[in-house]
Amino acid sequence: MELWYTENHSKEAKFSIKVEKQLYSGKSDFQRIDVFESNEFGKFFTLDGLVMITEKDEFIYHDMIVHVPMATNPAIKKVLVIGAGDGGTVRELVRYESIEKIDMVEIDQLVVDVCREYFPHSTSGLDDERVNLYFEDGLKFVSEKVNEYDLIIVDSTDPIGPGEGLFTRVFYENCHKALTDKGILVNQHESPFYEEYQKAMQRAHQRIHEFFPVAKVYQVHIPTYASGHWLFGFASKSFDPVKDLDADRWNALGLETGYYNTEIHKACFALPNYVKKLLSEAVSK
Amino acid sequence: MELWYTENHSKEAKFSIKVEKQLYSGKSDFQRIDVFESNEFGKFFTLDGLVMITEKDEFIYHDMIVHVPMATNPAIKKVLVIGAGDGGTVRELVRYESIEKIDMVEIDQLVVDVCREYFPHSTSGLDDERVNLYFEDGLKFVSEKVNEYDLIIVDSTDPIGPGEGLFTRVFYENCHKALTDKGILVNQHESPFYEEYQKAMQRAHQRIHEFFPVAKVYQVHIPTYASGHWLFGFASKSFDPVKDLDADRWNALGLETGYYNTEIHKACFALPNYVKKLLSEAVSK
Amino acid sequence: MELWYTENHSKEAKFSIKVEKQLYSGKSDFQRIDVFESNEFGKFFTLDGLVMITEKDEFIYHDMIVHVPMATNPAIKKVLVIGAGDGGTVRELVRYESIEKIDMVEIDQLVVDVCREYFPHSTSGLDDERVNLYFEDGLKFVSEKVNEYDLIIVDSTDPIGPGEGLFTRVFYENCHKALTDKGILVNQHESPFYEEYQKAMQRAHQRIHEFFPVAKVYQVHIPTYASGHWLFGFASKSFDPVKDLDADRWNALGLETGYYNTEIHKACFALPNYVKKLLSEAVSK
Amino acid sequence: MELWYTENHSKEAKFSIKVEKQLYSGKSDFQRIDVFESNEFGKFFTLDGLVMITEKDEFIYHDMIVHVPMATNPAIKKVLVIGAGDGGTVRELVRYESIEKIDMVEIDQLVVDVCREYFPHSTSGLDDERVNLYFEDGLKFVSEKVNEYDLIIVDSTDPIGPGEGLFTRVFYENCHKALTDKGILVNQHESPFYEEYQKAMQRAHQRIHEFFPVAKVYQVHIPTYASGHWLFGFASKSFDPVKDLDADRWNALGLETGYYNTEIHKACFALPNYVKKLLSEAVSK
Repeated sequence: MELWYTENHSKEAKFSIKVEKQLYSGKSDFQRIDVFESNEFGKFFTLDGLVMITEKDEFIYHDMIVHVPMATNPAIKKVLVIGAGDGGTVRELVRYESIEKIDMVEIDQLVVDVCREYFPHSTSGLDDERVNLYFEDGLKFVSEKVNEYDLIIVDSTDPIGPGEGLFTRVFYENCHKALTDKGILVNQHESPFYEEYQKAMQRAHQRIHEFFPVAKVYQVHIPTYASGHWLFGFASKSFDPVKDLDADRWNALGLETGYYNTEIHKACFALPNYVKKLLSEAVSK
Repeated sequence: MELWYTENHSKEAKFSIKVEKQLYSGKSDFQRIDVFESNEFGKFFTLDGLVMITEKDEFIYHDMIVHVPMATNPAIKKVLVIGAGDGGTVRELVRYESIEKIDMVEIDQLVVDVCREYFPHSTSGLDDERVNLYFEDGLKFVSEKVNEYDLIIVDSTDPIGPGEGLFTRVFYENCHKALTDKGILVNQHESPFYEEYQKAMQRAHQRIHEFFPVAKVYQVHIPTYASGHWLFGFASKSFDPVKDLDADRWNALGLETGYYNTEIHKACFALPNYVKKLLSEAVSK
Repeated sequence: MELWYTENHSKEAKFSIKVEKQLYSGKSDFQRIDVFESNEFGKFFTLDGLVMITEKDEFIYHDMIVHVPMATNPAIKKVLVIGAGDGGTVRELVRYESIEKIDMVEIDQLVVDVCREYFPHSTSGLDDERVNLYFEDGLKFVSEKVNEYDLIIVDSTDPIGPGEGLFTRVFYENCHKALTDKGILVNQHESPFYEEYQKAMQRAHQRIHEFFPVAKVYQVHIPTYASGHWLFGFASKSFDPVKDLDADRWNALGLETGYYNTEIHKACFALPNYVKKLLSEAVSK
Repeated sequence: MELWYTENHSKEAKFSIKVEKQLYSGKSDFQRIDVFESNEFGKFFTLDGLVMITEKDEFIYHDMIVHVPMATNPAIKKVLVIGAGDGGTVRELVRYESIEKIDMVEIDQLVVDVCREYFPHSTSGLDDERVNLYFEDGLKFVSEKVNEYDLIIVDSTDPIGPGEGLFTRVFYENCHKALTDKGILVNQHESPFYEEYQKAMQRAHQRIHEFFPVAKVYQVHIPTYASGHWLFGFASKSFDPVKDLDADRWNALGLETGYYNTEIHKACFALPNYVKKLLSEAVSK
């Protein structure tokens, strides 16, 4: 059976995964959801035809979106997660006993329902008693919060479709307001390589930079995302992710991780010249 | 015109580039050589159907294979480059006035001839008067040298076909012998993600580790290579690439680079846990 | 969502259909069965990764495998159908009131079950009271019959996997024995264009020719089969499909058909020179 | 080397040929021309990304566009060929000693030049002394001719780009005028299966039907054209292609052909019901 899932990383570059079979296909009010089984990546799911997570490499994304802020400020107690319907971000968060409350706001309940069925490992943290699930628009949810969270994680799709609002100026402004004065905002920050992603990255950085005194970007190797070169944003009102890291303290927690470690933590903020240039162009526009 | 070049990154994952036209196709005694023109990556060439360089991202590879050792030991005077037929490695080397001699040993003259025609930017350093071009077997060439080079760069294809010998124990042993007591060996070290590449990476590390007291691996984002997560090996008789870096000294040279900088230099040696584990498994075998 | 089903028509020619979603995937004791939904061809199903029928063009295959023999001898009363799990052949047969009995022998019950669910139009004739369904090996079934059928239709997969036995000398010999002295054998006869299919076609013709005084081949345009140029075999003990056609009589039945008509009936036995040559080479071996 | 040429037969069905190498790529004032080498089909060339001929199956097209009219009226002396830049149509025509003059009008000289270089077999008839090559617009050329040709063959691309004018009402009207009162017009008539081709076929038939008392369509198996089911139009002022065929006379010429024979000649005018319906819908619009 030759059945291939193909994703256009750009108009003229594409990545294809041989599919053993399709496990699910459905449409919610927001997007199309498909789940596939593959030999190379295990199960993977797509939203509107773009890979969200694969069993093989999701650990990289979730390690890096969670442990970087958590190791920077171990005093984080209240967390807001926006998007993240696959559950992986919450799974990593609930490993921290110090966290008291996790509000997760996912616009599309079907994503969570489908992931609970097909990705039990990924969604295993969602029933933790500290987790409150809201199926609402994250943009609206955050606009009603003031000084409430120590950490906001924006684990969204690309800025097309349901994820679009999570890349707007007003959203970042509301995040700033919803964070405490030690608050950290981490967001999925697209990729520097292919043009479309590059533009989205620049726009996001430009807007975050307007509202946060610390606005950095860190990089990670995610083989199933376009170009394999992926970025996260780290913005905060006071913490510097490198200087404020107390590596010993985090290591003392004894959390086993597949990608993250405290050396990677420091290293991932060192960016290639061409990426630095793109980011500095963005903020000088 | 729908014409696509496809490379299998693994048996069940493939990467495809839309080709505007094929500029060259030929067979040497060693391998098949093809040159293509694409909109997304500019011109690119393949050996036996595997992408070697693209105009769009070759700067990443060449920055990282050259500037890491050169910044570690600015006293490097004599360099041996093995493979590297596209010329990019030499192009970066000749920017260092301090280098006195570069011996480049490429087994396949046709690669150099073709790259001179289609990649003039890449091959622009080959006519530098310090460069000696040898069209010979690198394995044999290096076996005849003793205590001669400060730096050996192995810029080879994968360990199949003509590149195979450059991943053997005897080759690394000969490199050790050919290096001065301050010598550094940098080599193309495959990728940690897909199984076949992973195995090649482990084998290379295991063998280098036998002969060199310092045997490290550093990582880089190369979008057109399998998984986008690529590794280089840094082995030496004495230098530690991180501790011995004098960033100010390198920065004072004023070399403009697209990827490399001295922060990246230090950062690229921080590896994800799963890569560290693969490497430590390799040396404990 | 870019999801494509691909079939290799030869090692270096392939045909791909964009899939909206996969409706079913399962494995029986005999083969893998998949059902897909597409915009271009409607639903289609594959056995071991080869297209069997699509909603868009299945009428061509079923018209031509049934109406050619039925129009040649309208006195056919007892029919044996081997294979044909999608039901389309029986659907066409039950339109003839003159037929008294149809034994259908399909080795794989799962094919029928899946087609009943996803292809109700195709399987609509299976509950006709004249139809007897046997889930058995057709090769064995026919070996136990003597002088019993006026028509045997071999509606099989290619001669690999479960269809293999239906292309053997002993099978054709048994068909001959199971047929009455006016009996007709019609079989799926592969394609003349690509080498692998060409060989299967030649082997089938050679073997049928040994046992039947009349052994002809007729051609049809089936766009979703390899090369679009498909063949059926018409063998009989006495009838000539062209000379014995009474077009008026068949037309008087008033059966509406999408492909078949009595001009096509006569015309389809006229073969291109290169096909005639392949067939005559086969019998002179 | 995985290099594949892909042609969209419809938006959601595509056909791909593995390419050994590209032999030529160029742009004329009219279109893009590419020549490829493949194992499966030998050399093939494309105009604006659509396959024109392959070495493996071009004999089918050229047999059927030439021998059908020539066998219908062996008294043909003066022939106009429009398009046909690959030369195959003229190659078949020059086999008839009875033909006195062949005017070939190809708008794009580069097509002929490229085919002379890469397809010497196909272009072998172009230097016959009866052949006059005109690199002009066929639409204009024919408009200036009155009662001059016994046969016009329109061997054009699809009705997009340079071939567009050759599917217009005014063109067919001019062909009628340019033909003698025994004149025959044969044209490349697209395909009945995929929607876009189907529409082009209907439009062509509708327009030809307006000007010619005899306006028939005949079919052929061309594996490398969309769906493999291809049509030619046969229009004339008096000849009926089936009734007027004198098979013995043509066979006495002793021409060896790979596809055409006089049985195929008669048979190819028998069309499937769905094609007949499409054609009759076209003329009743």
